[in-house]
Amino acid sequence: MTDVTLFHWEPNANSGKPMLALAEKGVEFKSHYLDLLNFDQHKPEYLEINPQGTIPAMLHGDRVLTESTAIMEYVDEAFDGPALMPADAYERLRVRWWMKFMDQWLAPSFSMIGWSVFVGPAVRSKDPAELEAAIDRIPMPERRVAWRKAIYGSFSDAEIAESQRRVGVGIDMLEAELAKGGWLGSNSYSLADVNGFNLGYALPLSQPDLANDQRTPHIMEWLRKIYERPATRFIWGMGKTDMVKRVEILERGAA
Amino acid sequence: MTDVTLFHWEPNANSGKPMLALAEKGVEFKSHYLDLLNFDQHKPEYLEINPQGTIPAMLHGDRVLTESTAIMEYVDEAFDGPALMPADAYERLRVRWWMKFMDQWLAPSFSMIGWSVFVGPAVRSKDPAELEAAIDRIPMPERRVAWRKAIYGSFSDAEIAESQRRVGVGIDMLEAELAKGGWLGSNSYSLADVNGFNLGYALPLSQPDLANDQRTPHIMEWLRKIYERPATRFIWGMGKTDMVKRVEILERGAA
Repeated sequence: MTDVTLFHWEPNANSGKPMLALAEKGVEFKSHYLDLLNFDQHKPEYLEINPQGTIPAMLHGDRVLTESTAIMEYVDEAFDGPALMPADAYERLRVRWWMKFMDQWLAPSFSMIGWSVFVGPAVRSKDPAELEAAIDRIPMPERRVAWRKAIYGSFSDAEIAESQRRVGVGIDMLEAELAKGGWLGSNSYSLADVNGFNLGYALPLSQPDLANDQRTPHIMEWLRKIYERPATRFIWGMGKTDMVKRVEILERGAA
Repeated sequence: MTDVTLFHWEPNANSGKPMLALAEKGVEFKSHYLDLLNFDQHKPEYLEINPQGTIPAMLHGDRVLTESTAIMEYVDEAFDGPALMPADAYERLRVRWWMKFMDQWLAPSFSMIGWSVFVGPAVRSKDPAELEAAIDRIPMPERRVAWRKAIYGSFSDAEIAESQRRVGVGIDMLEAELAKGGWLGSNSYSLADVNGFNLGYALPLSQPDLANDQRTPHIMEWLRKIYERPATRFIWGMGKTDMVKRVEILERGAA
């Protein structure tokens, strides 16, 4: 009987990071699915666990853990199984450099575009009064602002343009890094790759002109290598939406 | 003869983080001071070391390291000396949670206020053509935007208000955490405290209504404890501006 419970949405973005790390380590966990599009993460029963209303959150015994990248480092350190951080201190720095770059600089831009083309339209058809009530329940003011913009399609042109610029820069940086040795910041599969896969698995679909077999062969090879791993297959099988099912492009031979 | 060189500005904010970590570990380093107010960090000779033009950067032998929090973890792992991370995996997660919170959520708001009241006015009197040329040399577009706003005092009221709100929330969160055991996220002095001191040492001066002996006694006690450490005294003695000299309020008995 496992004493690990994970509160997560789909295996992607922040939720998928601890899911994949746990699966790679061979740690069983009780899955508690929260439907982001139904605002489950802002409901009182979840706010008792994580008052900030962000997902994922993990319970390990009576410990409550939040912040997906910090959770991944915890999972790697607290459980047996294959190491997901390199042994060399400099490679560890490089892995953390990439995670910082992705978490702070790149992911918010990916996210803004994803919200404007997917999340916003997916929830916009709900009852307006219900939507306003859902927004009012969001505990962090800056998240209320972001959700409101996503729901009503009111990200400014300048915001979207800056996000698209960063996605372009990020794709080129990933391609250059992966051309060196096949992994992010180190010579083996690490938390940086887990982080990057959760952020980037849908790139060939969402940014087909920028990420494809001709223009970014190393990104495509990297995504396919990770997608083939048993842990990834297992976790991706837990997805409930089309979002994580439309990855045929990563199947070998589909190129 | 040390093989560590640190490129840094004043011992505060991001520059002070690796400086204090190196001093706590007893690692000698060659100091290379870059005057942020003279835009030294955007000059060609430094961009050869760090093309992003951010400070600090560290050389260890032929390795180039950037990103101040990742550098601190490297310093703790790569050198002998007292441990600056707790041994327990959960405490390590809490330390990383606080560093993430400060680096990503709180520091940009501190920084915006600091830029608007100090950095902007300090450079605004330079020759306008020279200022424009300095801005044009900034490699990252989003940093050009931020510098332009700081120099010409054009942060919006909404941006300043959101930053001031976050500083208030952050002070209350720090006070609550420090009331538990005196350190951030663990039971001993760690990288989270190093991080927090560099961010917060000037709070009693910059936010006297929010951070003072009556309202936030645990923050004040924590700042004084850290300020008394030999490593802090040594590093703070490297400061060249009034900014790091005006800490009399942290001297014992000054309250």
